[in-house]
Amino acid sequence: MRKVFNFSAGPAVLPEEVLAQAAAEMSDWNGSGQSVMEMSHRGKEYMSIHERAEQDLRTLMGIPDSHAVLFLQGGATLQFAMVPLNLLGQNGYGAYVNTGEWSKKAIKEARRFGEVDVVASAEDRKFTYVPAQSSWKEFDGASYLHYCANETIGGVEFGFTPDSGDVPLVADISSNFLSRPVDVASHAILYGGAQKNIGPAGLTIVTMRRDLIGRARVETPTMLDYQVHADADSMLNTPPTWAIYVAGLVFQWLQRQGGVAAIEQRNIEKAALLYDYLDSTPFYTNPVEPADRSRMNVPFRLPEAALDEPFLKGAKERGLLQLKGHRSVGGMRASIYNAMPIEGVRALVDWMREFEKEHG
Amino acid sequence: MRKVFNFSAGPAVLPEEVLAQAAAEMSDWNGSGQSVMEMSHRGKEYMSIHERAEQDLRTLMGIPDSHAVLFLQGGATLQFAMVPLNLLGQNGYGAYVNTGEWSKKAIKEARRFGEVDVVASAEDRKFTYVPAQSSWKEFDGASYLHYCANETIGGVEFGFTPDSGDVPLVADISSNFLSRPVDVASHAILYGGAQKNIGPAGLTIVTMRRDLIGRARVETPTMLDYQVHADADSMLNTPPTWAIYVAGLVFQWLQRQGGVAAIEQRNIEKAALLYDYLDSTPFYTNPVEPADRSRMNVPFRLPEAALDEPFLKGAKERGLLQLKGHRSVGGMRASIYNAMPIEGVRALVDWMREFEKEHG
Repeated sequence: MRKVFNFSAGPAVLPEEVLAQAAAEMSDWNGSGQSVMEMSHRGKEYMSIHERAEQDLRTLMGIPDSHAVLFLQGGATLQFAMVPLNLLGQNGYGAYVNTGEWSKKAIKEARRFGEVDVVASAEDRKFTYVPAQSSWKEFDGASYLHYCANETIGGVEFGFTPDSGDVPLVADISSNFLSRPVDVASHAILYGGAQKNIGPAGLTIVTMRRDLIGRARVETPTMLDYQVHADADSMLNTPPTWAIYVAGLVFQWLQRQGGVAAIEQRNIEKAALLYDYLDSTPFYTNPVEPADRSRMNVPFRLPEAALDEPFLKGAKERGLLQLKGHRSVGGMRASIYNAMPIEGVRALVDWMREFEKEHG
Repeated sequence: MRKVFNFSAGPAVLPEEVLAQAAAEMSDWNGSGQSVMEMSHRGKEYMSIHERAEQDLRTLMGIPDSHAVLFLQGGATLQFAMVPLNLLGQNGYGAYVNTGEWSKKAIKEARRFGEVDVVASAEDRKFTYVPAQSSWKEFDGASYLHYCANETIGGVEFGFTPDSGDVPLVADISSNFLSRPVDVASHAILYGGAQKNIGPAGLTIVTMRRDLIGRARVETPTMLDYQVHADADSMLNTPPTWAIYVAGLVFQWLQRQGGVAAIEQRNIEKAALLYDYLDSTPFYTNPVEPADRSRMNVPFRLPEAALDEPFLKGAKERGLLQLKGHRSVGGMRASIYNAMPIEGVRALVDWMREFEKEHG
């Protein structure tokens, strides 16, 4: 077992078994004499890796045949442009729920291409909650409804699937991808960068309703048109083969853990351990409404900023890495993705308790 | 030493030392307790990798301070859109030299955004040569002049730097990146996917004149604007960290080989070995003008297509992999990038000779 626990918000911890397999196969994948990084993406060896990764993802998430799976590049940030370019048409508008920094980025980018209506916003309370759907504005005429299922920076997560009626529902699931069951069929598009819960940075996974493919505006750059990727089975040009391979190893690992429903139970347990401790003491604070707290990203503050450095220093000495909060908000943040073992969360809580005793 | 030689056109062979180091450091980079894939891209460990990769690339290519280095995603295919979106302005036109399949793709994409003038084309002789610059149309008023320095499919390579006067010169160097010295200062933009001569798929490297940054059209999606990437030191969002790390290892390997001038000598030697043999027999044919033959990608044909399968089968038995030509042209193709040892080329020529004796 490794000696550290890595709480990075992304790129983030990967299962040890996955890293061990990737290292063992580095120079010779499955007797091919080649590294996966060296394989032609059109060759049968890589194709088998690619197809299995898609199949395993379909099984894990329960992705129906009505939905395509695309392995793309550019991160969620490129999806912020691709969604409006592909779904807005010439005169449509996008309805957005604003629950934090990543929602804001998506909204800002969409405004470059058309009208946006922010139908709900949690800005009034500093993005510490998810507005109940009953409070949202109407969006019947929207081209789509967009929400960020988990705000990595704010630590706010949707606990429900919005009801969008006939309006295509689009979600950024970058930071809670595969951490809990998702109703794929109800979503027109689910997208996310892989570098949090799935694998290496540089891979973006999109699953989308096939009947919505092919509606990109004429001025859309070819690489930003979902159709060309769907038509080419994500091989319009060379895909990020290594990242897809590692993602595939993570999918296999996740199946060995019992799948998404099983990992959700562990994620609930890990999150409860940390939040219960946070709630048990006034020393540490987390500002998020309990019902809307993220199971993946847990921001918290110490009573004064001057304690941040000694807290981080002691954490590092104990092998608890990457706990510094996002530069835009400060404080601490513990990201406890699928691959973070519960022992890591226990070790963190132990250190928090010890630190509180010293400085409380 | 490995038992196979991989002639894939990309993704392609990597130096054994690089793969060994990547495997050894997989779970614990430099005592950090983390895999490079797990590191926050904002952390000091990854930042040191990122910065060194840029510095080493600058040294290897002699990139002056006037030029930015960008680590992007999306491959050359996305650059086909980014170049016109960033350089055309509202009313400009792009001048293109058409030397084959990749030139054609670049031209097709540019036409989506404005006027294109093909100032020279080798289509009249099936893309088997580079038109001499003396035969090109004038392009004084162009927003830029674009050429593909090495056509991976056709096996045609520029042996000279076009003189574009005051017109910004743009080159796709995906498949001969770092294989020979390039006059960086004379180029406004050099771009290429990493998956041929540099590292894993999913990384695109751009070096570009800083004074041309910031001219993107207003409708350019944010991720396609060079300026945002330059301003953020290629960290607008999470970069493809693993791919940049492996590219950095390749840069270090290349320095140990003596740099680009030294590797060029070996590339000349390897290419001569193969072309000299091809020219010594009528059994195999390569249609490209000798002066314009690629040092990286050597397409060749057997006297009849029925011999392709036995040739490939025997090659595979001898550990000579991925020799099948591009699906659009058929025949054979041997890609002999920097990391292909001369022993691989010798083994290929030995097999070609043996096969000729049997079937000639």
